Amino acid sequence: MKRIEVTNPASLDNLKVYERDRPKPGAGDLLVRVRATSLNFHDYLVATGVLPVAAGRVPMSDGVGEVVEVGSGVTAYKPGDRVLGTFFPNWQDGLPVAEKVSAMAGDHVDGFASEYVVMPARTFTAVPSHLNDFEAATLPCAGLTAWHALFVEGDLKPGDTVLVQGTGGVSIFALQFAKMTGATVIALSSSEPKLERLKQMGAAHVINYKTTPEWGRQVREVTAGRGVDHVVEVVGGDLGQSVQACRTGGSVYLIGLVSRKPLQLMGGALITGNKRVIGFTVGSRAEQQDMVRAIETAKMKPVVDKVFPLEELGQAFRHQEAQAHFGKICVSCST
Amino acid sequence: MKRIEVTNPASLDNLKVYERDRPKPGAGDLLVRVRATSLNFHDYLVATGVLPVAAGRVPMSDGVGEVVEVGSGVTAYKPGDRVLGTFFPNWQDGLPVAEKVSAMAGDHVDGFASEYVVMPARTFTAVPSHLNDFEAATLPCAGLTAWHALFVEGDLKPGDTVLVQGTGGVSIFALQFAKMTGATVIALSSSEPKLERLKQMGAAHVINYKTTPEWGRQVREVTAGRGVDHVVEVVGGDLGQSVQACRTGGSVYLIGLVSRKPLQLMGGALITGNKRVIGFTVGSRAEQQDMVRAIETAKMKPVVDKVFPLEELGQAFRHQEAQAHFGKICVSCST
Amino acid sequence: MKRIEVTNPASLDNLKVYERDRPKPGAGDLLVRVRATSLNFHDYLVATGVLPVAAGRVPMSDGVGEVVEVGSGVTAYKPGDRVLGTFFPNWQDGLPVAEKVSAMAGDHVDGFASEYVVMPARTFTAVPSHLNDFEAATLPCAGLTAWHALFVEGDLKPGDTVLVQGTGGVSIFALQFAKMTGATVIALSSSEPKLERLKQMGAAHVINYKTTPEWGRQVREVTAGRGVDHVVEVVGGDLGQSVQACRTGGSVYLIGLVSRKPLQLMGGALITGNKRVIGFTVGSRAEQQDMVRAIETAKMKPVVDKVFPLEELGQAFRHQEAQAHFGKICVSCST
Amino acid sequence: MKRIEVTNPASLDNLKVYERDRPKPGAGDLLVRVRATSLNFHDYLVATGVLPVAAGRVPMSDGVGEVVEVGSGVTAYKPGDRVLGTFFPNWQDGLPVAEKVSAMAGDHVDGFASEYVVMPARTFTAVPSHLNDFEAATLPCAGLTAWHALFVEGDLKPGDTVLVQGTGGVSIFALQFAKMTGATVIALSSSEPKLERLKQMGAAHVINYKTTPEWGRQVREVTAGRGVDHVVEVVGGDLGQSVQACRTGGSVYLIGLVSRKPLQLMGGALITGNKRVIGFTVGSRAEQQDMVRAIETAKMKPVVDKVFPLEELGQAFRHQEAQAHFGKICVSCST
Repeated sequence: MKRIEVTNPASLDNLKVYERDRPKPGAGDLLVRVRATSLNFHDYLVATGVLPVAAGRVPMSDGVGEVVEVGSGVTAYKPGDRVLGTFFPNWQDGLPVAEKVSAMAGDHVDGFASEYVVMPARTFTAVPSHLNDFEAATLPCAGLTAWHALFVEGDLKPGDTVLVQGTGGVSIFALQFAKMTGATVIALSSSEPKLERLKQMGAAHVINYKTTPEWGRQVREVTAGRGVDHVVEVVGGDLGQSVQACRTGGSVYLIGLVSRKPLQLMGGALITGNKRVIGFTVGSRAEQQDMVRAIETAKMKPVVDKVFPLEELGQAFRHQEAQAHFGKICVSCST
Repeated sequence: MKRIEVTNPASLDNLKVYERDRPKPGAGDLLVRVRATSLNFHDYLVATGVLPVAAGRVPMSDGVGEVVEVGSGVTAYKPGDRVLGTFFPNWQDGLPVAEKVSAMAGDHVDGFASEYVVMPARTFTAVPSHLNDFEAATLPCAGLTAWHALFVEGDLKPGDTVLVQGTGGVSIFALQFAKMTGATVIALSSSEPKLERLKQMGAAHVINYKTTPEWGRQVREVTAGRGVDHVVEVVGGDLGQSVQACRTGGSVYLIGLVSRKPLQLMGGALITGNKRVIGFTVGSRAEQQDMVRAIETAKMKPVVDKVFPLEELGQAFRHQEAQAHFGKICVSCST
Repeated sequence: MKRIEVTNPASLDNLKVYERDRPKPGAGDLLVRVRATSLNFHDYLVATGVLPVAAGRVPMSDGVGEVVEVGSGVTAYKPGDRVLGTFFPNWQDGLPVAEKVSAMAGDHVDGFASEYVVMPARTFTAVPSHLNDFEAATLPCAGLTAWHALFVEGDLKPGDTVLVQGTGGVSIFALQFAKMTGATVIALSSSEPKLERLKQMGAAHVINYKTTPEWGRQVREVTAGRGVDHVVEVVGGDLGQSVQACRTGGSVYLIGLVSRKPLQLMGGALITGNKRVIGFTVGSRAEQQDMVRAIETAKMKPVVDKVFPLEELGQAFRHQEAQAHFGKICVSCST
Repeated sequence: MKRIEVTNPASLDNLKVYERDRPKPGAGDLLVRVRATSLNFHDYLVATGVLPVAAGRVPMSDGVGEVVEVGSGVTAYKPGDRVLGTFFPNWQDGLPVAEKVSAMAGDHVDGFASEYVVMPARTFTAVPSHLNDFEAATLPCAGLTAWHALFVEGDLKPGDTVLVQGTGGVSIFALQFAKMTGATVIALSSSEPKLERLKQMGAAHVINYKTTPEWGRQVREVTAGRGVDHVVEVVGGDLGQSVQACRTGGSVYLIGLVSRKPLQLMGGALITGNKRVIGFTVGSRAEQQDMVRAIETAKMKPVVDKVFPLEELGQAFRHQEAQAHFGKICVSCST
């Protein structure tokens, strides 16, 4: 079988396909024929060597596929079942503690850039039945990150207002989950065609942050001075506009650091505004089960930007680097 | 001006219209021209004398109208504003405590069966702008009861499953709020035409509880054995089927007692199923503000069954007694 | 090694000690030399055949002991470590769902009435270091039940008031946890000497429910009309007094059914009082870890009533039946 | 009667006592003979002109006194009652929203540096009966800030670990509330005598942040690598050590900005550690009622550093400036 392994140090030019023996499932494991994976910022940091991993590590935290064989003691799955991987193999449930969030697929343990994988059965969940493999592959990292922000940290309810930034995977999922819940969405982008598309997806207000760098004030205006209940922050760096856009008592969910600068914010704005900045990474398997149920109920469709074959994972990351995508970039792992 | 006052003892035959002087707003008050009210089970208990109130009490807890004059110190409203009354004039916010829930409009203090009312400005909220007066009048008691169950006690999220019983006001609101949030609804009725209409409103499964008295088991079946997350209980009495229909860890919101019998349930089912029975009455003004925002965002339309003139409030209650309605029965208070 | 196995049907007269081979730990398992177990109502139902279990089942859900050998892959424990068993081997963390709460130690899987046990390492936690084996053995069922009521369902905080019923294990733990948290305790018993002892343990008010059958009213009086925030209900049956004793917005935690009658309560009291009845069974391993930390911090000492040797498990249950104990009855499993 | 009014611009040298007519209570008001107030950082900012207020404003947000006369319609209090003021006259209950937190006593409305005050009855609560006036005067701002952090934002429970910084009012209250709840406290100071006193008050570990500037690492060490559950942050500026000291999934409550520098922190530490920074100001009247009940139950005694007469309010602030105090600085307003 084919799989990709990273070198140490890693680089996009070194993402090569190797021919390896197909692994066998041990007790409690599944052998899964991987159909698709999708690209996340965390994968990019691994693939480019910014986050160093062991040489030979199979990258990519997202994965969807079909069960080929089950190890001894596995009763929850059978050959032929479609299964969805999870970002944290050890975060099954409950609150995050250090032991649960210390291992990530495609980083500390092997990920899904492979025709076949063997992983513990407890690290998989069901797949929404109406989704094709590429759509489903977008869920474990980007989908669950948006879900965890809005429903685990955020307790989103109808009538709330959510601010999303840009058109990356998490932001689009946040928009879709918010719309699914009867909430109002305000979306930022620097591209007018993308703003147009965000409107078509249901954003009530769109703001071009390039032409309106003081967008915090504009968010205040379109919310009648109240501010938004939830800010899904993927940029980091100077949080001034986000904190201003947030209502008294609201929350900024810190999930991305596109700017790569240290956070900067005025403590006084948090204190007098009763605001909070909540950092987190993805979520638990139990939360993924809830998300899968919700997506299936609403027949929600993730937005797939483009699909690359496994051999072109490097090009896929170059496409991600170019920041021209809308939604998720996917990779076909087997056919 | 005209208003209805109850006698002591009260009865539907004694619900008469009296001519009274229009009251004047004191400090902090609003004088409101009432446009509409709607009927709730609590109003029925007052109007029939089951819940005795002071002679001369103006009944009806729901009310929507237009501000005619504001008392000194009122800055939040001005003449011409549409306003919505609240069920508990003293439950502004926060958790219920005895002081907050001891006075109900149309029971311990005068209600809205009147052309004009004077009440403290702090007991009103905004009205969803897309609703006519009859639609809006359904919100303070039945709407907020369903809202409080699902969003305050229940933390409803997309993908959850909600069981609703019958086609009274609270049940229909619960169905609509659940659909608005991307949840699945299972609905009960004893009437096939009503079941058909519940399906058209979005119920994924409907069950005729007359022909399927063991409906708890059927709810289990249509939920793949899991049970529902939320039961909106309006019947009371023997809770056996409701508790069986509820999933492990789920909740039964006790909001109505149509059966008028003491509750009966097996403690063991609650204990081994980690289930809870949560009683409550309506909700706070702050919750009503959240609900108004949600209804406005989703452009949700309450279901009005029939409208009566103020003079025919007694007939309106007879119509309610007949149990043939679907949604809310309303009354026009002024034109 | 010695162990007790139940017959089918079970009875206290048939609780006999058998000589069996010492088991070997498989992958992920611990071999534990059990030092002590303690008696719970659930064990009593198993031992008397009220809850039928497979013939040969080793009873008793509580267990504390010393690790003798670890199976392959176990890194969290080493030989010599003291370990505490858990009531639900599959409820590691998070909310209760059917899969987690379907297997109980000493019921669906073998329990701790044995000199040695082999169980998965993930089903154990640390032991508070200041407790002897009998004290520690009281924690997994009775201790965690009281903890889950007050801190997981109940969010107990200083200044709250807790009502406890009688002097069984859960009630005494609830009293101790409440005192540890700066809360006020009101305690019921039918025995004056026990009431005296409850006072010495810190109960602010004690009520003899035999001489004051209308104790709900008296609880109201000693709380200046407010009622208690938390009722730890171990009796079941007619909940009228408990519901009356509970404040507006308060909770009744249903954890025991000493009365064995169906629950009876007036729905109206729940509805107008915004009260809830919350059923549950014990709690998760993660909660047990929190409880162990709390007990260790406060140097809290569980109350051990009497210790029996393993061979006298039947007599121990007779002692429990007699209802003369105060705190927990324990059994020595090895020396 | 005597009262202090600030000039505009304000300065400590201009804090003078004026002779004014005693005010009269209007409808819903109380006339209170103020016994004591205490100093907070917010008062200092007002008194020094950093936070500009209207000329003639009576400063000081804390106040305790005796009801002299009640306005019409007031039933909750009677002459002779001891009452405690609240920081936010409009934050009665529920979550903070802009309208509730926009007016602070001693800033946007007159405060308590006066022999008598007239304020709405709804802005007062009961006083813990075991406290003298100076002890009680410390509660509305500093006490409630610590309470809100630990019990409203933080859900403190026995066995948790709390980090407190320095020996100002909020930090000492946080230590006392944590001890009251069976939690472990780690305390920082730059003074060895103060560290000794913090130990005597129950801190399990003390760290001199001057001699151990990398105290985040040391907090990790004394918590066996886990970190603390709760950081009560009163310094602001560079949050690096606080975030490091905080466990995975823990919270930093941002309540003070002694450093006056913008917050600086690495977003990656929040994201990978699932940590949050929660800003807020004091709390609601309902929370103050809970706190009063808790303090009364535990017979907890606030720490009063020194008492000044009203005429020496300026000197009192100089004493605060010198940072040599331990606990709260109080002022006697009448005798």
